Amino acid sequence: MNKTGRVTIPTDMDVIRETRELAERWGADAVRDCDGTEFPIELKNAGMKVYSTYYTTRKDNEWAKANPDEIQQMYLMTPHTTATSGELRISLMRGLYPDMLTPNTRDDIQRWWEVIDRTTGEAVPTECWEYDEPAGEVVIKAELFHDYTVSFLAYIMWDPVHMYNAVVNDWKDVEHQITFDVRQPKTHAFTMERLRRFIEEHPYVNVLRFTTFFHQFTLVFDELAREKYVDWYGYSASVSPYILEQFEREVGYRFRPEFIIDQGYYNNQYRIPSKEYQDFQAFQRREVAALAKEMVDIVHSYGKEAMMFLGDHWIGTEPFMEEFASIGLDAVVGSVGNGATLRLISDIEGVSYTEGRLLPYFFPDTFHEGGDPVKEAKYNWVTARRAILRKPIDHIGYGGYLKLALEFPEFVEYVESVCREFRELYENIKGCVPYCVKRVAVLNCWGKMRAWGNHMVHHAIYHPQNYSYAGIIEALSGAPFDVKFISFEDIIKTPEILEDIDVILNIGDADTAQTGGEWWCNPAIVTSIKQFVYRGGGLIGVGEPTAHQANGHFFQLAGVLGVEEERGFTLGYDKYNWETHEHFITADAGDQIDFGEGKKNIYALEGTTILCRENKNVQLAVHEFGKGRCVYISGLPYNFANNRLLHRAILWSAGAEDKLQQWFSDNYHVEVHAYVENGKFCVVNNTYETQTTTVYRGDGSSFVQELKANEIIWYEIN
Amino acid sequence: MNKTGRVTIPTDMDVIRETRELAERWGADAVRDCDGTEFPIELKNAGMKVYSTYYTTRKDNEWAKANPDEIQQMYLMTPHTTATSGELRISLMRGLYPDMLTPNTRDDIQRWWEVIDRTTGEAVPTECWEYDEPAGEVVIKAELFHDYTVSFLAYIMWDPVHMYNAVVNDWKDVEHQITFDVRQPKTHAFTMERLRRFIEEHPYVNVLRFTTFFHQFTLVFDELAREKYVDWYGYSASVSPYILEQFEREVGYRFRPEFIIDQGYYNNQYRIPSKEYQDFQAFQRREVAALAKEMVDIVHSYGKEAMMFLGDHWIGTEPFMEEFASIGLDAVVGSVGNGATLRLISDIEGVSYTEGRLLPYFFPDTFHEGGDPVKEAKYNWVTARRAILRKPIDHIGYGGYLKLALEFPEFVEYVESVCREFRELYENIKGCVPYCVKRVAVLNCWGKMRAWGNHMVHHAIYHPQNYSYAGIIEALSGAPFDVKFISFEDIIKTPEILEDIDVILNIGDADTAQTGGEWWCNPAIVTSIKQFVYRGGGLIGVGEPTAHQANGHFFQLAGVLGVEEERGFTLGYDKYNWETHEHFITADAGDQIDFGEGKKNIYALEGTTILCRENKNVQLAVHEFGKGRCVYISGLPYNFANNRLLHRAILWSAGAEDKLQQWFSDNYHVEVHAYVENGKFCVVNNTYETQTTTVYRGDGSSFVQELKANEIIWYEIN
Repeated sequence: MNKTGRVTIPTDMDVIRETRELAERWGADAVRDCDGTEFPIELKNAGMKVYSTYYTTRKDNEWAKANPDEIQQMYLMTPHTTATSGELRISLMRGLYPDMLTPNTRDDIQRWWEVIDRTTGEAVPTECWEYDEPAGEVVIKAELFHDYTVSFLAYIMWDPVHMYNAVVNDWKDVEHQITFDVRQPKTHAFTMERLRRFIEEHPYVNVLRFTTFFHQFTLVFDELAREKYVDWYGYSASVSPYILEQFEREVGYRFRPEFIIDQGYYNNQYRIPSKEYQDFQAFQRREVAALAKEMVDIVHSYGKEAMMFLGDHWIGTEPFMEEFASIGLDAVVGSVGNGATLRLISDIEGVSYTEGRLLPYFFPDTFHEGGDPVKEAKYNWVTARRAILRKPIDHIGYGGYLKLALEFPEFVEYVESVCREFRELYENIKGCVPYCVKRVAVLNCWGKMRAWGNHMVHHAIYHPQNYSYAGIIEALSGAPFDVKFISFEDIIKTPEILEDIDVILNIGDADTAQTGGEWWCNPAIVTSIKQFVYRGGGLIGVGEPTAHQANGHFFQLAGVLGVEEERGFTLGYDKYNWETHEHFITADAGDQIDFGEGKKNIYALEGTTILCRENKNVQLAVHEFGKGRCVYISGLPYNFANNRLLHRAILWSAGAEDKLQQWFSDNYHVEVHAYVENGKFCVVNNTYETQTTTVYRGDGSSFVQELKANEIIWYEIN
Repeated sequence: MNKTGRVTIPTDMDVIRETRELAERWGADAVRDCDGTEFPIELKNAGMKVYSTYYTTRKDNEWAKANPDEIQQMYLMTPHTTATSGELRISLMRGLYPDMLTPNTRDDIQRWWEVIDRTTGEAVPTECWEYDEPAGEVVIKAELFHDYTVSFLAYIMWDPVHMYNAVVNDWKDVEHQITFDVRQPKTHAFTMERLRRFIEEHPYVNVLRFTTFFHQFTLVFDELAREKYVDWYGYSASVSPYILEQFEREVGYRFRPEFIIDQGYYNNQYRIPSKEYQDFQAFQRREVAALAKEMVDIVHSYGKEAMMFLGDHWIGTEPFMEEFASIGLDAVVGSVGNGATLRLISDIEGVSYTEGRLLPYFFPDTFHEGGDPVKEAKYNWVTARRAILRKPIDHIGYGGYLKLALEFPEFVEYVESVCREFRELYENIKGCVPYCVKRVAVLNCWGKMRAWGNHMVHHAIYHPQNYSYAGIIEALSGAPFDVKFISFEDIIKTPEILEDIDVILNIGDADTAQTGGEWWCNPAIVTSIKQFVYRGGGLIGVGEPTAHQANGHFFQLAGVLGVEEERGFTLGYDKYNWETHEHFITADAGDQIDFGEGKKNIYALEGTTILCRENKNVQLAVHEFGKGRCVYISGLPYNFANNRLLHRAILWSAGAEDKLQQWFSDNYHVEVHAYVENGKFCVVNNTYETQTTTVYRGDGSSFVQELKANEIIWYEIN
């Protein structure tokens, strides 16, 4: 077993000796600077790879100020404003932080801005509005009591992440870092030169860690400098007339701001994406990849590695899309919050290695007197480990101020154990596909582009609206299934993808991109899925699966799933199927299943077997359709019991109940993963208490095992 | 004070003496037979009007059998059936009670039936399907995995109400009563003759009580004779090719079964009505009124009165529509379940008097050993009394087997007190509009056609989906407001109706007829309502008011109401307005307000004042828009506290807080009603306990009063 490697340690000017000591204890083979720290040159020959954070779009205000036309821009929409007289004045910057944004009047506003009558949904002719620049107001010839919005371009005069750090940490007298647009010609040339200069001036750096490339995810602040809008997946800050004219030439139709503004919803992940928005994303991915490749090629020409941070300016680099590999990156690093975010990183192909930044960051919010960083670290590691055991990252690391961590010796020791454990498991499972019971596919509007992130808001923020669905994705991130994310378009373009799937999942609320909305009125889609089930496939619907009100149904596949939602329209129909039944799926679920937010008003059709309901609201039911089997679940937050319930639901829907006791732990706090090619399997305790379980091997033979809190035990397959 | 009158008593052959005695005690001035009882001829000169139930469409199987082409028909839709091969066979009678219905193959099935591909929403060409009559199956050339339904006409071989009575009471060996269609020529002629004969054979009858006219509301039973589908408002049993051809000639476009079938939703009250369905209803109302008038004229020609029972075959006689008065009826009688059903009757204009059948019916379900009919009677009377005090019926009555009531002397005594109390209040308030604080209008798709019944399913059945909204209507039925029910079309056709309204209410779930759905994308509607509020009107939204997803909002009047529903699309927007506030509306609401089902995911916009929320789900909030005021309530089941809350919400939204303490009781279990023209006011205890309250007169002066359980006290206005 290797005693070093696969670990990155952060450093700073004031912890040179301590970095060396800790690197030795943790077995670090790489060292990094962070935002707010500096790399001590004394460590350049410490036997570790040196990473250097590199900001492509900021930290050069001199350039930005000299080239104001190439400052980055974003699309913004004013709030809806009601016209109470024939002239309506809308202030562009109402509700926005004034220092962050400046409306772009340099380019033709009649071309790039749009005033929309939101009462009719129509654009207001440009001759009916004008911009009163001194007042900062658009003046509209308005229809009485119609609502209007203005969509406009603004320059980003303060990088949103820099602003965020300045506000949160209460930095005083900090010069606002302006963002420049590498996509535009002058800045493009300057940037390549700037990158060369940086590499030449930092010869000891082995790895350029790009944070990231060109376009910041959407992040806007209000007048009080509070966060106003954030979308880690948002494209609205990746625009400029220069880029948009290119886009128009490529797609052959006229650009409209509304493609980005999307009624003020900014094409967030819940929105069913329009063709134009998808065209724009595809265009951006191609352009970003080509330009990023230029930078990576420069890095390589100096014999250095190029690493991408999956965050900040990552827009256009979606790692699961085909353009990504063409960038030629050596590595991707990202922050690991849970199993799903882990697999956002570890599932990336086309790079030599992936790295996960574990939590907690060594920041004062956790590392203060009375803080308990070990607790956070344990939670983070145990949660991420489930996913690592399915698809490992190649490297782990930490970030922040090392000095802070040093004051918590128990934390330092715990990290040492994590590093050791990670190296061991990596050694045991590397290059090997773990045993998968079945192949499952999550079906939504985004497909692989939003794989693992399809229920995330921002970067895995809890919302009452998402945790009951995100729980399924989190469960899958560490489950013994081969998990795909497919889109409706995938089915249209390549119907045969369904042949390699055992169970399809459709998860989320009605008329969102997660469930698909109107896609379920597409005969090609519904017939494909019905045929898939009829011939023996499994279908698991969670929340409001296949829902869109049309043709006598809300759940378009009500007849397949065996459940429907009461929206008043079927109250006249008497409903007699309310009995609940015992079932394989709930065999070890206990009395109380946590459906999270669950759903009201779901009822079972005749022939459906209800497993659980609350009053007359069905929460869990099963139904057979042809040779196939369907499961309806109203919601399933992540926890160990639900993880087991989902496991059983997948097995049942795939007709594979007999595979339950293979590489299996009967205690659901413990999981078993098998790496048959490598001749290994492990038993892992996901809890902070001792657990006893019966472990089943692949041949069904079993033994009883006790595991200490969080313990992982490795075995040889005989 | 009159000691008799305004009361109808039921009788039967076995209670002749007792009828006389009780009529004396109760002060009855009318006597009636019931379904299942016979009128004893000995009572014909007992000093009471004699009512006789008259069945227009049944109780003459000889005629029905001799004229099978004129048996009544209804439209039915088969369940959705998936084609798993190129030939799909759909059994018409699957899920239907075989003795009740016979598919009509006498008329051209290609013209009157419709096979619909519910996957595409398109009708299947008639050359692609045929009816295999021996098998009872429609055979369709089908697309694989598409879903199909068959819409077909069937003869009603067993009157649904007769069947219901037979099944519920377990009648054995009863001949099924077949329903004949008075609208068709032979039966039309026969019916008029039959009516004359009946009147001539029953010379002692003073009042012909029609049950009702021609078309039964929708009521269908399944294979097990269980109720399968019921809609007290449903028109699907009012059809026949004869009628539909007339309809086609009148409207000038081709009839399609889908106008009635409506995707299997049968145009129930939650559905936003299509133009074609509304055309059909209007056509039916005109035709039914004309034909009913013929019958009423015959009744009058014999010097008798014509009374209509608001139930059973009442389709086409909507009493609040203009055709109704042309029938020339003398009276309408209906069953009183609560305040809203009371006003379904008492608000009827164009008749000489209205009568309410109070509960309980003298049936064994209540009148059995251990039963408590007094409790039911009290609940019914106290509930109905609130509404009677606003708009009285002219007559009350009871139904059922008088013999059963006689065994409950306390009940007999309680009814005596009710009759006395009713006569007193009628005397005090007759011919007088009670004091109204404000004018409110409930805005939905149905308007006055479904006044008071707009949240009813069947005839006021409780459903988890409706009680939180029906509660508002129930509260209004006894509240000191002038209540209108208006439709979106009313606003389009007569915008000035808004000038006579102080507060508009929009109540219900999104995309239902109760809230209006897509109507809120009609610029004429939204600008009218916004202008109404802006200029000082009140708007109260309950549940998902003005909701339809479009133009950047779910609540189309989010900016006016100040609240919006989170459907995932705005999760990226940070929300800072969560503080709750004290307010006029909640001044006496206590700590816990019962919002019924309430709503999740409602958030307040900036500038909105939250009065109540559960976690981050706003339940009650207020917002000003121009000079107007809006209130959002997530739901409001009927109870005394909520009744008060609604009262305050209406006053606040109308800017009339200063009118609170006028004709007012500070204890919300007690209400005050003033009849200024008559110089009377009353204080009424709505509970079964003693109450003490401060009573405010119209001039704001007050006094303290104690009231016994249920007591009503009358005062003179000095």
